[in-house]
Amino acid sequence: MTTTTTMTRLIRAQTLATWLRDYGVANAMEDIAHHIHDDFLRWPEFDKSARVACHSPDGVIELMPVADARLFSFKYVNGHPKNTRQGLSTVMAFGALADVDTGRPLLLSELTLTTALRTAAMSALAAQILARPDSRVMALIGNGAQSEFQALAFQRLLGITTLRVFDVDARATQKLIANLAGSGLQIEVCRDARHACEGADIVTTVTADKTNATILLPDMVAPGMHINAVGGDCPGKTELHAEVLRAGRVFVEFEPQSRIEGEIQQMPSNFAVTELWRVMLNKASGRTSPEAITVFDSVGFALEDYAALRYLYVQAQSHGLGEWVDLVPALFDPKDLFATVTNKADAIAAA
Amino acid sequence: MTTTTTMTRLIRAQTLATWLRDYGVANAMEDIAHHIHDDFLRWPEFDKSARVACHSPDGVIELMPVADARLFSFKYVNGHPKNTRQGLSTVMAFGALADVDTGRPLLLSELTLTTALRTAAMSALAAQILARPDSRVMALIGNGAQSEFQALAFQRLLGITTLRVFDVDARATQKLIANLAGSGLQIEVCRDARHACEGADIVTTVTADKTNATILLPDMVAPGMHINAVGGDCPGKTELHAEVLRAGRVFVEFEPQSRIEGEIQQMPSNFAVTELWRVMLNKASGRTSPEAITVFDSVGFALEDYAALRYLYVQAQSHGLGEWVDLVPALFDPKDLFATVTNKADAIAAA
Repeated sequence: MTTTTTMTRLIRAQTLATWLRDYGVANAMEDIAHHIHDDFLRWPEFDKSARVACHSPDGVIELMPVADARLFSFKYVNGHPKNTRQGLSTVMAFGALADVDTGRPLLLSELTLTTALRTAAMSALAAQILARPDSRVMALIGNGAQSEFQALAFQRLLGITTLRVFDVDARATQKLIANLAGSGLQIEVCRDARHACEGADIVTTVTADKTNATILLPDMVAPGMHINAVGGDCPGKTELHAEVLRAGRVFVEFEPQSRIEGEIQQMPSNFAVTELWRVMLNKASGRTSPEAITVFDSVGFALEDYAALRYLYVQAQSHGLGEWVDLVPALFDPKDLFATVTNKADAIAAA
Repeated sequence: MTTTTTMTRLIRAQTLATWLRDYGVANAMEDIAHHIHDDFLRWPEFDKSARVACHSPDGVIELMPVADARLFSFKYVNGHPKNTRQGLSTVMAFGALADVDTGRPLLLSELTLTTALRTAAMSALAAQILARPDSRVMALIGNGAQSEFQALAFQRLLGITTLRVFDVDARATQKLIANLAGSGLQIEVCRDARHACEGADIVTTVTADKTNATILLPDMVAPGMHINAVGGDCPGKTELHAEVLRAGRVFVEFEPQSRIEGEIQQMPSNFAVTELWRVMLNKASGRTSPEAITVFDSVGFALEDYAALRYLYVQAQSHGLGEWVDLVPALFDPKDLFATVTNKADAIAAA
């Protein structure tokens, strides 16, 4: 029978959450960072395109496809800042991994939690390349849904020991502190973003407002800092003052997409940026001195979801993560789709 | 709790097949044709784009998004002609319907069977507008996976009583005859495509080869015929001789997409075509005389999947079709995604 060849592995949100509590969030992010790194090293092999976006008054819905010769992946993801007012997440996501040779969907997975994991893994991976190796103190500005993941990824992959945290919503900061209790991270609550930046080796901005904000001003940036700008990720949403971008060198994931969605949307189209994969492959320089200021203008690229889905699929295959679902019909004769809606289907099910 | 607001309805392939055996394939196609018609009448309200395609040596994987102010839909679909050699369908599909205001995924559904239903419903809807009202005999050239659906949709919606069938693979024709036993359709097996066209009011071509074929030659077309060209639906795959297209008036779904994927890919870019929605809204003429030759150059447009998904969602809501799945996490506090991977999650589950 064709059962094994047409079934798709399904990973529900609760299934992944339960698995992560057992396996460890930091462990999973470290694994995903390795998968992202492996795939970024194969950058030229991928069929890349900017995401397909559907904008509405309150938000955006996007499809993010990418493929190489072996696997195709896409992510469905929304961004609706007002959702929290009605108890919904700002960002919800799911996606799939498919076999390029046959088009068969191999994996359908929740990607809300996974997006948080891969975003933090990507940030930490970029910082491993761009931040000073002796970085120990990180400012974490914006203490919302993504913040704990950033904190744990930087602790695990960079050796960050101290967080200097700030959010305009004090309850968000309290939530962060409660969630990171037992992590071993030393957390210093700051009175504003400027205060949080004092003495920081790395500054992570991960605020949620859909506005052209200036969370980070030029005089808050010190020599040698690495800035991990995560929150600005769609047209009209930025976090850094333009002079902050001019003060250092800016690194991006996929330039055509970042020009539209990233911090650099506020810069002229000829403003120099470096795609991170080029640094990984030694085609471009990263940090050139301990005093240099580096900026990772993170918007989230489809290849990171590809890497995360590939990782989840390995977990499904090797450790049974998820369950089987008949997303496509099992056919006795592939030219006889109609059989599924006739009594022949009973005979197939019994076979 | 937020359970009811974050769960997504899931319709598996087997679930839909079982439901269709109970409800009736022709009934479902008639319903879907009404939904497509309703949505085509609102054509200008939709945010339309050509599909996103990823081509590989053996096939193509596509994402087909579309949205209006209320709902967003997309379909994942492949086309791999060689799949049948390894027992897999040529076409496999699934997709989702989401709420534009919040981005929440409302429905995730199998769309392999549904694509067959909506394609046949669309063909019959186009023929209701374009074919002679007294059409009773249909040539059905290509007796593969889509053929029975076409036959039943034309019986139900056009009043077709007789099929003249041909396939290069005689087993495909035998399968069609077996599947349509009891349908009331009179089936005449023909020795070739030319023979099948003799005396036909409507000619449906639904062959599967990924080549520039000429299934239909100019001297096989008689005055008054309506040609329903279904099989040609991607670059390099056509079924009609160019002179057949010149012999009549050609109607398409979404012109920018059809220029790339349809029969008209072989014509100059200024070859005149009419989008079908314009005929529905009386902005353009359809059939102008009993002797006119009309061609529906079907490629399958995202709006048809939107209409089908909208229909399935109504069945899910009103008749319980499908099941609930936690594709996105249920959060006690939407700003606290991390809670799902801590012990707090147990407290939420118990609440």
